[in-house]
Amino acid sequence: MNSTIETLLSHRSIRSFTEQSILPEQLDTILDCGLAASSSSFIQCVSIVHVQDKESRAKLAQYAGGQPYVESCAEFFVFCADFHRHQEIHPQAQLGFTEQTLIGAVDAAMVAQNCLTAAESLGLGGVYIGGLRNNPQPVTDLLALPKHVIPLFGLCLGHPAQTPEIKPRLPKSIVVHQETYQALDKEVLTRYDAHIQAYYATRTDNKKAASWSDQITQTLSKEARPFMQEFLQRQGFNIK
Amino acid sequence: MNSTIETLLSHRSIRSFTEQSILPEQLDTILDCGLAASSSSFIQCVSIVHVQDKESRAKLAQYAGGQPYVESCAEFFVFCADFHRHQEIHPQAQLGFTEQTLIGAVDAAMVAQNCLTAAESLGLGGVYIGGLRNNPQPVTDLLALPKHVIPLFGLCLGHPAQTPEIKPRLPKSIVVHQETYQALDKEVLTRYDAHIQAYYATRTDNKKAASWSDQITQTLSKEARPFMQEFLQRQGFNIK
Repeated sequence: MNSTIETLLSHRSIRSFTEQSILPEQLDTILDCGLAASSSSFIQCVSIVHVQDKESRAKLAQYAGGQPYVESCAEFFVFCADFHRHQEIHPQAQLGFTEQTLIGAVDAAMVAQNCLTAAESLGLGGVYIGGLRNNPQPVTDLLALPKHVIPLFGLCLGHPAQTPEIKPRLPKSIVVHQETYQALDKEVLTRYDAHIQAYYATRTDNKKAASWSDQITQTLSKEARPFMQEFLQRQGFNIK
Repeated sequence: MNSTIETLLSHRSIRSFTEQSILPEQLDTILDCGLAASSSSFIQCVSIVHVQDKESRAKLAQYAGGQPYVESCAEFFVFCADFHRHQEIHPQAQLGFTEQTLIGAVDAAMVAQNCLTAAESLGLGGVYIGGLRNNPQPVTDLLALPKHVIPLFGLCLGHPAQTPEIKPRLPKSIVVHQETYQALDKEVLTRYDAHIQAYYATRTDNKKAASWSDQITQTLSKEARPFMQEFLQRQGFNIK
């Protein structure tokens, strides 16, 4: 155990922040850590839009489905897959491949995760805002993202005004498979479901009575942003 | 500056490993750190296949386009987007949405980045193997991945037998945009291109004479794994 591992293991999403700002040199360090992440074939197809304007924040909070911490956090970032700069450099670049969407999503997430880890190591906290994908076109318009750039998710950072319990994750024996894919162990799942139910019943905020399986069933009974494929294609992704 | 930030800033991909193994308790900790990452809507759609079998490793090294460190590293993992377990729990789950591919890619990358950061904090090193996507179907067959599971990338971990220079990343002023997307600053790019050219000319291994713009132009003149869309659809992703 070392302090990096302690930081990683004590991650919880922070949705309530004090008014304290993040020092410019801390912000610089956080972003430097992000950019130090691996980049697939050194393509460097990630852009980060740093949004501080109050009106823009209010709009983004609304686009994300009404998430007030998008407004109240000290710093807000939108992580994007970006092949626009590559097209600027090489106008005949072969773009639009589904593979490039995967590269963009994977690389942006690695950059973002480094930013969050760095922030948490400094005593800051944050939460990802996947809800921006509820309204990808309005987000794209607001941030003036050109073709070949897509917003993937947001990240709120600030000084935590809460210490939520750590949400128990699926057991390693379910997530990590040895040598080949292993069938779901229903007994382990049943114990995990009970564990999650107890967690929700006893946590201080936002109590509910649901197992993980209940939640999954509810979430996946609905369509998942069915407009996404069309949006991506409009922005020049997933065409071929 | 703290030790976590030092770890993140000193990242370099390690492709040469000693024979020393990783202790089982270290491996446990690394995976626990991975699982502690954020999960979009708590869907937990990531699976990790831990591959130690020598024959499987040799095949994966070949599928990745001949990357010998897939065989020689102490531990090898394949990170997957996995909605199979959700379908086991909820047979009528609405799957196949492009949005779910994004969630899978983003969440798997965050899990993996936590694993790599934890490993690096322990003095270990690693490299991601996106090359597995050269042959996604053979990888899928080898690991017996069912429908609704796709292999995204591999991760080699071990004790470093090299200390490569850190590759200079695109300047923050290009990657980080203030408020809205900013046009590419060609002067900053020209300086970065010169910087990368000098880096390649002076590094000890694998010298070459290319700017970043040269590399991008070369990489993006070719099709990017044009079979990916069809593969994803066969596995039940990107259908709608």
